[in-house]
Amino acid sequence: MTTAHASHQPGIPSGSVGIVSPSFIRFDEPLQLSSGRVLPQYELAVETYGELNSERSNAVLICHALNASHHVAGISADNPKDIGWWDNMVGPGKAVDTSRFFVIGVNNIGSCFGSTGPASINPETGKPWGAEFPLLTVDDWVRAQARLADYFGIGKFAAVMGGSLGGMQALSWSITCPERVGHCIVIASTPRLSAQNIGFNEVARRAIISDPDFHGGDYYAHQTVPSRGLSVARMVGHITYLSDDDMAEKFGRARRGKEAGGEFHYGYDAEFEVESYLRYQGEKFSRYFDANTYLLITRALDYFDPARGHNGDLARALKPAVADFLLVSFTTDWRFPPSRSREIVQALLKNQTPVTYAEIDAPHGHDAFLLGDTRYHAVVQGYYDRIAAKLGLPERSHVTGVLA
Amino acid sequence: MTTAHASHQPGIPSGSVGIVSPSFIRFDEPLQLSSGRVLPQYELAVETYGELNSERSNAVLICHALNASHHVAGISADNPKDIGWWDNMVGPGKAVDTSRFFVIGVNNIGSCFGSTGPASINPETGKPWGAEFPLLTVDDWVRAQARLADYFGIGKFAAVMGGSLGGMQALSWSITCPERVGHCIVIASTPRLSAQNIGFNEVARRAIISDPDFHGGDYYAHQTVPSRGLSVARMVGHITYLSDDDMAEKFGRARRGKEAGGEFHYGYDAEFEVESYLRYQGEKFSRYFDANTYLLITRALDYFDPARGHNGDLARALKPAVADFLLVSFTTDWRFPPSRSREIVQALLKNQTPVTYAEIDAPHGHDAFLLGDTRYHAVVQGYYDRIAAKLGLPERSHVTGVLA
Repeated sequence: MTTAHASHQPGIPSGSVGIVSPSFIRFDEPLQLSSGRVLPQYELAVETYGELNSERSNAVLICHALNASHHVAGISADNPKDIGWWDNMVGPGKAVDTSRFFVIGVNNIGSCFGSTGPASINPETGKPWGAEFPLLTVDDWVRAQARLADYFGIGKFAAVMGGSLGGMQALSWSITCPERVGHCIVIASTPRLSAQNIGFNEVARRAIISDPDFHGGDYYAHQTVPSRGLSVARMVGHITYLSDDDMAEKFGRARRGKEAGGEFHYGYDAEFEVESYLRYQGEKFSRYFDANTYLLITRALDYFDPARGHNGDLARALKPAVADFLLVSFTTDWRFPPSRSREIVQALLKNQTPVTYAEIDAPHGHDAFLLGDTRYHAVVQGYYDRIAAKLGLPERSHVTGVLA
Repeated sequence: MTTAHASHQPGIPSGSVGIVSPSFIRFDEPLQLSSGRVLPQYELAVETYGELNSERSNAVLICHALNASHHVAGISADNPKDIGWWDNMVGPGKAVDTSRFFVIGVNNIGSCFGSTGPASINPETGKPWGAEFPLLTVDDWVRAQARLADYFGIGKFAAVMGGSLGGMQALSWSITCPERVGHCIVIASTPRLSAQNIGFNEVARRAIISDPDFHGGDYYAHQTVPSRGLSVARMVGHITYLSDDDMAEKFGRARRGKEAGGEFHYGYDAEFEVESYLRYQGEKFSRYFDANTYLLITRALDYFDPARGHNGDLARALKPAVADFLLVSFTTDWRFPPSRSREIVQALLKNQTPVTYAEIDAPHGHDAFLLGDTRYHAVVQGYYDRIAAKLGLPERSHVTGVLA
């Protein structure tokens, strides 16, 4: 779990954490789940960047969204093209500066990138879990991550941070483990899914479950993959991550290898660029993502609703939180629009909890949280500078950085 | 093709056109299609309401959208529960007053409600057309409808009217047969699909085409129906017809037979009301709609773009139009939002074409065009009063009506 530093490696871009490999950490104590079931044991795939200081005060936990993993930053040792999903955010001199902070990326249980999930072997049967793998909630992920913090000897994180579903985990941390979170950073997220959000998830699930290759979730035994359903699921998801304007800008009504005035094909092959793009995204996804994981994660999204046990009162749900908060939303995000972040901000204000909120006027819809908008990264970097100052961490590295 | 009048029938609600039956009109002259192919012959299913006057000046053509038909108004003689899809709009004393206007509802070719379509027998093979049925465009539908006008001896319609895809047909009529359209009424429509619109259509098509029961479009021969794919297609479509707020209002996060605080099921059965509703809509649709028709109609939607042959200049495309126009849009329609209707209005203004535009602040998204919003219907009724006055038609019936 050591991370080489970019500045010392030839061929590694400045600001990169360099070449990275995951560690796999096994937990043998059974994990009690929200559903009432118990996961007898589990493994977490983890990457870390930077060094934990002697006070163990500079740790940052990065929580991932639907299709991401522990591989947050740097270049995978297995595949030089596999750059971490938040590499523009995390690295020496970047907004989350690994020259000052010790950053942990963790793959959640139920996922398909190395941590225990539906494709893992069920120790009781010696076969893949498949449909028998327990459904999980955001709180379950946090419970599993808390044990990871124990493993590292981290009593309290300087920050827990995530975008979208990752932001829900950060929020859950602040409520369920309040004393362990110094700062809670919630980006492009929501306190609960809307009916429309659940509707799109349900379309995705129906596409997967009704694929004959799904075999009730036990497709591993049938040596099939419900790739058609998974591909359709990804296509519909992908549309919701982009803004209407962004799609208009990227694709418009452009047709493959045709001028706008050229003849139509009069068929159902991919003719418009946007069709070709979505099909490609769907097919690529269906080759690397596990269908049971997709079902499980969309259900965890549906269920997330911390205010549910408090008659819908989000302020009451957030009452236990003692962290400082940063919320960021993006104007063109119609999946989790700014109004949803503002709900969280309002609830925190009602509780007199310190909160910073930035609404970024960015054109890229929900996906904006993964992109390198300068104002967005400047807000995050400024917030981390404040965290570092409070904790008395050393000066920021000046290798690179959005404000440099 | 006679229509009994409601006021004379016991048990028929006031304002209804009464019990109706379709006629089937056969056209033996081959129809040249936009694709270059030729439809050797075709039949159109038609319903009419009211009486054509001796001047033949009071005819109104109603064009249907994706899943509707010729059954615009009244009660089907075959099934007393089958009320016309625009029955709230068309009838004696209603906005489109059948005591003054002769209204024609026509099922388009390529559809599956009685007109010649993919499930019809191909006269050359004696088998269902299936995948061999030619793709159609909005202009093709208009060309087929123009022959229907000839059949009725109607030189010029008082109005051609439609919502959504129906509005595109009205727009095409005004351009391709300008002298035959007195008034063009375009509701909740667009001059062209956006990349996002095409993206959702493509998701629907992939769901259908990748269903193993689709058999490349020749499922009739295999005695299967790609009902899983068609159901998913309808679910995703349905979400785009409703507004986010409307879904929040209708379903929120309500769960079936559960209080909001009750335990989750931890499974993938329909648990939230919105899931149950969408599944029901999808399954119902897959029992009555033809998959090849769905493909064909979504492709006609994708292709519609009258400005395409004019370097994207919509005003130039609309130059031939000599009709008066009424455009209506709905604020929460995110499928074809007001901005798309405003584009058409701008182009018409540029051409100094008479146009009335109403933007209705209604909560029901794209579906609002099918619903009975009082302000919306008052606008349409007022516009038809103007048409009637211009044509010297008799006074409006006072059986009922939104302004009565």
